[in-house]
Amino acid sequence: MNTIELIKKKRDGGTLRRDEIGFLVQGFLKGEIPDYQMAAMLMAVYFNGMNPEETSTLTDVMLHSGSTVDLSSIPGVKVDKHSTGGVGDKVSLIVAPMVAACGVPVPMISGRGLGHTGGTLDKLESIPGFRTNLSVEEFRGAVRDIGCVLAGQTESIAPADRRLYALRDVTATIESFPLIAGSIMSKKLAEGIDALVLDVKYGNGAFMATPEDAEQLAGILVSLGHAAEKESVAFLTEMDQPLGLAIGNWCEVAEAIECLRGKTVADLMEVSFVLGGAMVFLANKADTIEEGMRLCKSALWSGQAYEKFLQIVERQGGDVRCVEDTRSYPLPRYSAELRSDTEGYVEAFDTRRVGMVATQLGAGRHRMDEPVDPKAGIVLEKKRGDRVGRNDVLAVLHTDRDGVLEASVVELSRCIRVGETMVSHRSCVRSLVDRDGTRPWSSPELH
Amino acid sequence: MNTIELIKKKRDGGTLRRDEIGFLVQGFLKGEIPDYQMAAMLMAVYFNGMNPEETSTLTDVMLHSGSTVDLSSIPGVKVDKHSTGGVGDKVSLIVAPMVAACGVPVPMISGRGLGHTGGTLDKLESIPGFRTNLSVEEFRGAVRDIGCVLAGQTESIAPADRRLYALRDVTATIESFPLIAGSIMSKKLAEGIDALVLDVKYGNGAFMATPEDAEQLAGILVSLGHAAEKESVAFLTEMDQPLGLAIGNWCEVAEAIECLRGKTVADLMEVSFVLGGAMVFLANKADTIEEGMRLCKSALWSGQAYEKFLQIVERQGGDVRCVEDTRSYPLPRYSAELRSDTEGYVEAFDTRRVGMVATQLGAGRHRMDEPVDPKAGIVLEKKRGDRVGRNDVLAVLHTDRDGVLEASVVELSRCIRVGETMVSHRSCVRSLVDRDGTRPWSSPELH
Repeated sequence: MNTIELIKKKRDGGTLRRDEIGFLVQGFLKGEIPDYQMAAMLMAVYFNGMNPEETSTLTDVMLHSGSTVDLSSIPGVKVDKHSTGGVGDKVSLIVAPMVAACGVPVPMISGRGLGHTGGTLDKLESIPGFRTNLSVEEFRGAVRDIGCVLAGQTESIAPADRRLYALRDVTATIESFPLIAGSIMSKKLAEGIDALVLDVKYGNGAFMATPEDAEQLAGILVSLGHAAEKESVAFLTEMDQPLGLAIGNWCEVAEAIECLRGKTVADLMEVSFVLGGAMVFLANKADTIEEGMRLCKSALWSGQAYEKFLQIVERQGGDVRCVEDTRSYPLPRYSAELRSDTEGYVEAFDTRRVGMVATQLGAGRHRMDEPVDPKAGIVLEKKRGDRVGRNDVLAVLHTDRDGVLEASVVELSRCIRVGETMVSHRSCVRSLVDRDGTRPWSSPELH
Repeated sequence: MNTIELIKKKRDGGTLRRDEIGFLVQGFLKGEIPDYQMAAMLMAVYFNGMNPEETSTLTDVMLHSGSTVDLSSIPGVKVDKHSTGGVGDKVSLIVAPMVAACGVPVPMISGRGLGHTGGTLDKLESIPGFRTNLSVEEFRGAVRDIGCVLAGQTESIAPADRRLYALRDVTATIESFPLIAGSIMSKKLAEGIDALVLDVKYGNGAFMATPEDAEQLAGILVSLGHAAEKESVAFLTEMDQPLGLAIGNWCEVAEAIECLRGKTVADLMEVSFVLGGAMVFLANKADTIEEGMRLCKSALWSGQAYEKFLQIVERQGGDVRCVEDTRSYPLPRYSAELRSDTEGYVEAFDTRRVGMVATQLGAGRHRMDEPVDPKAGIVLEKKRGDRVGRNDVLAVLHTDRDGVLEASVVELSRCIRVGETMVSHRSCVRSLVDRDGTRPWSSPELH
């Protein structure tokens, strides 16, 4: 098989066969196909796409490029969730212990932050001592013993995806639905789950701008799940403002801890309950998603979800005292308030830009090999629709970095629009996508 | 400037500014922008194109990526020709000495064969001792002393194009008009010419299938010439059969020598006279292209063109005895005839495939670092429209390689269609493209 001919085939709108996709991915992984040829192929895929069969094959080839975790010895329907990423999205930190507290085994594999989005692993590692780099044996042991694990992808899982993702990242080929879908699902399917709940975000803080794009991607993801015989559903959720109040690693963990302790934040808990309810439902512990949500609420309000979180932290080597007393956490070197110079209502956020300000403060990274600062971040005091008086605090910024605070305050002021329009608070969960298609979702009354 | 953002910009249909194109090309040349990012950029250009200004900038940046040849000390209007490549195209070997014999300085830079097409340098090097790898001083000296030189691109000319071309070759991004045009024109403009005649081929033996594509490329090339203040015209010529009779390195040289001695081949001489006539016209040695053609014919029939060829061969170290007695050339180890198993007329050639058979025999290469066999090739006995009797020889094949001859005869038989339709011989020069646009071209009666 000739790599140049295969690039040409995709470039010219052709369909790649299973053996051709296998040749490309395996050749790339072995170093026989150089980066520059794969980069050209990825850009051709960006433009000409892949049909469902090609996408499913790509997923399968990447999934089988490494080892897979076998959790079949652990009883129960193992369920994970995945979000396409956003700003202030600490839902995993709440959902994993909450669903595990409902008796559902949750083997959760998460990623790191990049650009304007944060990553669950970075957040967890802000807890002193917390280890996310677990062996397969440690991973399986945690699920078996405490019903939950929050870890990074092991080196041996889907190495083809890791290599491809790194290349896509530097060649402007991230934003391709079949490549995104293949990347997500190859990793998820390799971790031994039985079912998967997806959170596909759209809006000015998400990778996808429109609900139409989100729906398309959600459809591909759910199909790939079902093609691999894993029950899968997706929710389309709006991200036109940060989720919850905190953006940054430790400050998001602290917010999640507050929520687990009952001091909840409305939009964050809406998403957490919906995704958690669906996980409980897919695990056959509830007859409907709504019933699953009720079980989740019970696990939260009873304190069992918080107890489970403490168990997870302890199991993975984290400092439990930090969790129990979040005020004991070291303070950042610099903090500053952003105050409103006008009065009115918070009309809108430039959410992506808020994420970039957090990154500038040290909470995120521009390249995968950069470290992040656990203490850096932004805590909002106002959300969309909130009333603002002149000189009210809109947000507090934190950083350990010299010389970035002042510019960040100015930059953040440009991300929050205060005006005279009274914007109503609204639900951010829009639609449910399952094997029967997409339909509107109305959250039952919350809390 | 951020390479990923620039790739994104082109990927999303944006227009690259001069400083951005400069950053990309110079960064690539310095090794600061890796191959994989440039490969992604090239594929994005393949899909989204470049507007005339971007193309002109790219050409200019590549042109100034290395040294340029200064021929201003040599009197006269220096003219070169360039063909987009085909099968059996030995026009340069005839045109260069013929036009030089008309008193026009011809500094001609040529390339090597790849895939189904041959290259002038490979052909010239089949003459024992002929050196095409000249220094700038040798190049200039030959133009000054004998009015003509036939050489390869020096290392220092347009290095950005060389690096980019090598990458395009292995990433399926050759077939992009702005990239093709920039590549051709950056090299041509670097060699110190004042005017340029282009031969843009289309048909089943050319890079472009349709006259519409050829016209588009020709228009871009002519515009780039004029943007650099070099008078330029292009001809669209059809290549639905090999040009002339010989395909292969030495056998094409031998055919060119025969033509220069007056034993002409109709289609080959039509193209040679038209391109040569235009060169003489652009050099202000004739008032019209037709008058230039008459001067070329005179140079040919008087023997001056042949004398000039001998001068060139001698000047560049070639064995003149070989030229004077082509029969003294060593014979290939294996030869075989392809005979017709039916009678009728030659209706059509699969020209690209004929080129691939020649490559298989050893006349061409699949990769730039492969050597070619000077003796390998095909000599046609019949051309389109020729009457064929049963068992008539259609072609003779030559090779030094073991074990390829028989399969090549069979393969060649599939490239030549003999049927009952009488196809008329027709002119292969279709249109002229100059700064005023495209118009049909009718060759004045030939010879």
